[in-house]
Amino acid sequence: MKRFGIIGFGRFGQLAARHLRDHFDVMVADPGDVSAAQGLNVATGSIEAAAAADIVMLAVPVQAMAGVIARIAPVVRPGALVLDVASVKMLPARWMAEALPPSVDIVATHPLFGPQSARNGLTGQPLVVCPVRGNRHEKVAAFGRSLGLKVSITTAEEHDREMAYVQALTHLIGRTLVNIRIPDEELKTNSYQHLLELCGLIRDDTKELFFAIQNLNPFAAEITQQFIAEANGLLAESLAAGKAA
Amino acid sequence: MKRFGIIGFGRFGQLAARHLRDHFDVMVADPGDVSAAQGLNVATGSIEAAAAADIVMLAVPVQAMAGVIARIAPVVRPGALVLDVASVKMLPARWMAEALPPSVDIVATHPLFGPQSARNGLTGQPLVVCPVRGNRHEKVAAFGRSLGLKVSITTAEEHDREMAYVQALTHLIGRTLVNIRIPDEELKTNSYQHLLELCGLIRDDTKELFFAIQNLNPFAAEITQQFIAEANGLLAESLAAGKAA
Repeated sequence: MKRFGIIGFGRFGQLAARHLRDHFDVMVADPGDVSAAQGLNVATGSIEAAAAADIVMLAVPVQAMAGVIARIAPVVRPGALVLDVASVKMLPARWMAEALPPSVDIVATHPLFGPQSARNGLTGQPLVVCPVRGNRHEKVAAFGRSLGLKVSITTAEEHDREMAYVQALTHLIGRTLVNIRIPDEELKTNSYQHLLELCGLIRDDTKELFFAIQNLNPFAAEITQQFIAEANGLLAESLAAGKAA
Repeated sequence: MKRFGIIGFGRFGQLAARHLRDHFDVMVADPGDVSAAQGLNVATGSIEAAAAADIVMLAVPVQAMAGVIARIAPVVRPGALVLDVASVKMLPARWMAEALPPSVDIVATHPLFGPQSARNGLTGQPLVVCPVRGNRHEKVAAFGRSLGLKVSITTAEEHDREMAYVQALTHLIGRTLVNIRIPDEELKTNSYQHLLELCGLIRDDTKELFFAIQNLNPFAAEITQQFIAEANGLLAESLAAGKAA
């Protein structure tokens, strides 16, 4: 069995460990709490130990990723595959390509699911795979498909352009609705039900993920600002129509 | 068969005529185009003629309703039932109670559906019924249930409080997303799918309906402003977190 190091044992690292432990010899590492590893029956070790595996997955918050890459660069083995699972792709792909030795293959990935959306299994959940260095993105894609995932291969830039809508805008709306506590009204429409279900899907996501999606996707700010400007414009137009009536 | 006058032959008036023509002797009236009445096989007449029916439904835009109520007040028959179907309830209920003669019973209603959401039938669609004068709201509720509708009886004020979320906020978000043309991306999450489906449900609603929902519900502005303030706050917090990192 190939050794698989998971660095970062938060919500996604734990989900990954649960699905990978039957296929690999998994070791998890995290600067914080790794006590959940016992329940999952996977080994724990230092970040350096996990980084010396055949395949290394970076599952730390994007905000911490450049630091972790610098830390593992001296210890990753020639021929190893390093992949990340961050929600933005242009920055992590550049960080990995710039800092990791040329003897290492690199694939940037984005699993568009988490513990909440995959609570009933992985089947049909989307996985984006972006080639960075070498051609092992094909193996990653094939393995994802073998788990039932719906795999798309694309560039980091195209990914980030689409995610400005799919993630930055969606998480802005969803987190705002969660924060203002929209009520589950007795009188409701199908339209409102969509907002309630959006809240349910993103309610447990971390603030770190929200900030990463908004700040570290170079196309996010333009789309979220366009949304707010249009909403303000519509309310102003309404007000003007009300005064004219 | 009781005579049923429908005043206002827009999107909802036409939907109502289609479902009521088997139960009543329906006559429709509208200051504009009523040519669709022929296809539905229902009679047309002047606003005054429709207002002289046993049951009179006001299906005009809320913005035109006070004018129509003033026009029909002299011709409604003693013992008639007048009901409206507007998306806000406090203002129409007050307008009807103030202007219609005491010999007329009044029920304010809000069918929380339209041609798009009821395209596969009325079963399970919500109907809100608010008593205004007399006790014929019970009959209206029973008839709605006989059509398969999910009927709720409540006050106009409670209705408007809930609709500030269910309609004003939902239509603001949906109309904004339609206007900025969010794309149907290949890479998408369940969360984003909810936004796309929201767009599909409200895309064809009129600007008049949007303005009525925003301007004529006394609780709407507070909720929509709270949403925009919170969204701006979240983006500012993100930006600050990005700069600190």
